[in-house]
Amino acid sequence: MNKDILKKSLAEFIGTCFLVMIVVGSGIMAENLSSNELNVLLANTIATGAGLTALILIFITISGAHFNPAVTLVMFFKGEISMQESLSYICFQILGGLLGVILANVMFGLEAIQISENVRGGTNIYLAELIATFGLIMTILGVRRISMLAIAPAVGLYISAGYWFTSSTSFANPAVTLARGFSNTFTGIDPNYILPFICAQLLGAYISLKVMNFLQE
Amino acid sequence: MNKDILKKSLAEFIGTCFLVMIVVGSGIMAENLSSNELNVLLANTIATGAGLTALILIFITISGAHFNPAVTLVMFFKGEISMQESLSYICFQILGGLLGVILANVMFGLEAIQISENVRGGTNIYLAELIATFGLIMTILGVRRISMLAIAPAVGLYISAGYWFTSSTSFANPAVTLARGFSNTFTGIDPNYILPFICAQLLGAYISLKVMNFLQE
Amino acid sequence: MNKDILKKSLAEFIGTCFLVMIVVGSGIMAENLSSNELNVLLANTIATGAGLTALILIFITISGAHFNPAVTLVMFFKGEISMQESLSYICFQILGGLLGVILANVMFGLEAIQISENVRGGTNIYLAELIATFGLIMTILGVRRISMLAIAPAVGLYISAGYWFTSSTSFANPAVTLARGFSNTFTGIDPNYILPFICAQLLGAYISLKVMNFLQE
Amino acid sequence: MNKDILKKSLAEFIGTCFLVMIVVGSGIMAENLSSNELNVLLANTIATGAGLTALILIFITISGAHFNPAVTLVMFFKGEISMQESLSYICFQILGGLLGVILANVMFGLEAIQISENVRGGTNIYLAELIATFGLIMTILGVRRISMLAIAPAVGLYISAGYWFTSSTSFANPAVTLARGFSNTFTGIDPNYILPFICAQLLGAYISLKVMNFLQE
Repeated sequence: MNKDILKKSLAEFIGTCFLVMIVVGSGIMAENLSSNELNVLLANTIATGAGLTALILIFITISGAHFNPAVTLVMFFKGEISMQESLSYICFQILGGLLGVILANVMFGLEAIQISENVRGGTNIYLAELIATFGLIMTILGVRRISMLAIAPAVGLYISAGYWFTSSTSFANPAVTLARGFSNTFTGIDPNYILPFICAQLLGAYISLKVMNFLQE
Repeated sequence: MNKDILKKSLAEFIGTCFLVMIVVGSGIMAENLSSNELNVLLANTIATGAGLTALILIFITISGAHFNPAVTLVMFFKGEISMQESLSYICFQILGGLLGVILANVMFGLEAIQISENVRGGTNIYLAELIATFGLIMTILGVRRISMLAIAPAVGLYISAGYWFTSSTSFANPAVTLARGFSNTFTGIDPNYILPFICAQLLGAYISLKVMNFLQE
Repeated sequence: MNKDILKKSLAEFIGTCFLVMIVVGSGIMAENLSSNELNVLLANTIATGAGLTALILIFITISGAHFNPAVTLVMFFKGEISMQESLSYICFQILGGLLGVILANVMFGLEAIQISENVRGGTNIYLAELIATFGLIMTILGVRRISMLAIAPAVGLYISAGYWFTSSTSFANPAVTLARGFSNTFTGIDPNYILPFICAQLLGAYISLKVMNFLQE
Repeated sequence: MNKDILKKSLAEFIGTCFLVMIVVGSGIMAENLSSNELNVLLANTIATGAGLTALILIFITISGAHFNPAVTLVMFFKGEISMQESLSYICFQILGGLLGVILANVMFGLEAIQISENVRGGTNIYLAELIATFGLIMTILGVRRISMLAIAPAVGLYISAGYWFTSSTSFANPAVTLARGFSNTFTGIDPNYILPFICAQLLGAYISLKVMNFLQE
């Protein structure tokens, strides 16, 4: 692996690690402070939207700030990133996500690796996940036409909305979904539902790519 | 219909569909998690403000990101969009809104099409809706003088405020108002009140156009 | 009065009217939905911060978007606005604020003009108001050095913080303070405390002007 | 001391004073209004994120808007600020923080100087503080590559997330940590834990500097 790809992949690793720490950690903090589920999701939303925006601003000039295999695949299909780089990105995203969930658990004094028992099944939930990822890719492909800088707030704001308007709370990210299987807390997902979530995400991303290609060609 | 108008109208369709999904879906999610009405409106506000800002950033370079017949009519009266294009926009906004409310209902496992029983009548409420739409058009016409990019956060922020400072919670959009008749949940509106709401909105938009023309001429 | 000053003053009138509608109206809405004071102030904060940012973006290219006699006086002392224009601005700000509080009361079906019984006295409260206005002027004078556009979010964010970190909840605006005397709701102020509030505000503004002159000369 | 360093140091003094007033004052206000800890932290987060963003926008063109000895040390190690200037910055940051906590206490009618009894110990808490500061330095060094203006929202958003995803609530600032020892309220810290907090912060800052040097070289 050349040094340029290594650096970019390391940026994806750190970014995805922080993203998962933010998603999972804020869920734990909120659950520790209140049993009111609306308030817990509100705190989780604010932390995720704020943190994700900051992370994209930090890493967008280094690696493009994907932190998400669905985004990397879309960029690969658009011919903007090589197969070797894509594979490296995705590996480091997955590893970063796993370190992120472990650190979140450890920071809050919990067992480092847990298996979530959070049931998230149902056709309507998978439809929500498809719509969530459709919208995420639509956000990235739409907004970068105006300004690379504007991608950061747009994605942070879109995901903040997604936590509420989709019944799945918009995971919209295969690496983050996998990592969230390892914390049996508010943001966890029972591993049995990870595969259907990822399939719905990839399908939503693919449809979005096609639709945006038509609108922007 | 030529291909250019079709693409723009499709952008209006998708944008309005997502806008209604965000408004209605976040209301359902919040109601599912809590019976505290202030908290439900707070969640609804954050989702709507964030999502609307993202949607405008996504589509502003494609269609102008109206998602709102009142906005389209204002642009028509300013001579910036043809009658044919305006009519196409409005049709697709209405259809997009209807798909949006159906998807929101379905994502949360509810009956796809419902009739709202949410009573929203009274002269003071219609006055609020007039003021809300006056302010929305004022925001768009005022801010685009500085920067097209700034329209997105300005409109998102204005509507976030509108959810609280107007007694009608600022629908300010005929297509979204119509769609909200079809979900008997937090953000719904009993169809009997749709017509007075739309009249108040169009009147507010017209007065705002005149006032801003005077201020900016 | 020439037409240019009239237009600018009208912009100040509409802007201050909306600002007071937002501050007072969101307080009424929140009080209607919950008796939890923290939640009411939170809703009030979000509406005010969001709405104020939008209003400044709308009117900054027309009148400078003061909406505040303390800001107008600072600009007068800096020689950036004539005495005639300053006086006109301040009159229209006061009138706009009064219309704003009436419309807020009316929109929510309350008596149009009320006298607030909300006691807000004490040396520590006046100190808070002095600090609040010091910080507001510091924000405007500091941020305009970077960008006129950035003033809008900076002021909106500063006031959002001010609602919480000052014991007076940062009125920081003589025209808004006066108007808030006429709504006996969450954001009201018993008229007996209006004069000390305004004195503290003007003193804070004056000290801030001097300090920023030293730092920026 | 020459006048240029004095002015910059005074900017650091005022900025850090306001930062501590915002952090501590908003915690007191929120505690006064509710005993729900999640809501208190939410209010504290919104005030801090909003206020910090405004403060950085105000002072970034004057002093660089560090308000934080860890940031000043990083800039010293990068050779961007002299040792004399660094020492002056740090002294004024500490003094500004102390004035800030006193003013916060006084504004809310509390004893001016208190000793916090808020226990914040444990290896996992110190790890959290290390991660928090690692991320803060990563934010500053990453984002300034794109735009100086974007540092302000990025840091405000990062700290807003940090209040939730780290078990220590992300103090991430030795001067603010020290000051927070002197208010026995929500945001206070028992002085026994100040030293380990500062050590963890400085270690996190140092590691972040090295990692970002590698990624950006």
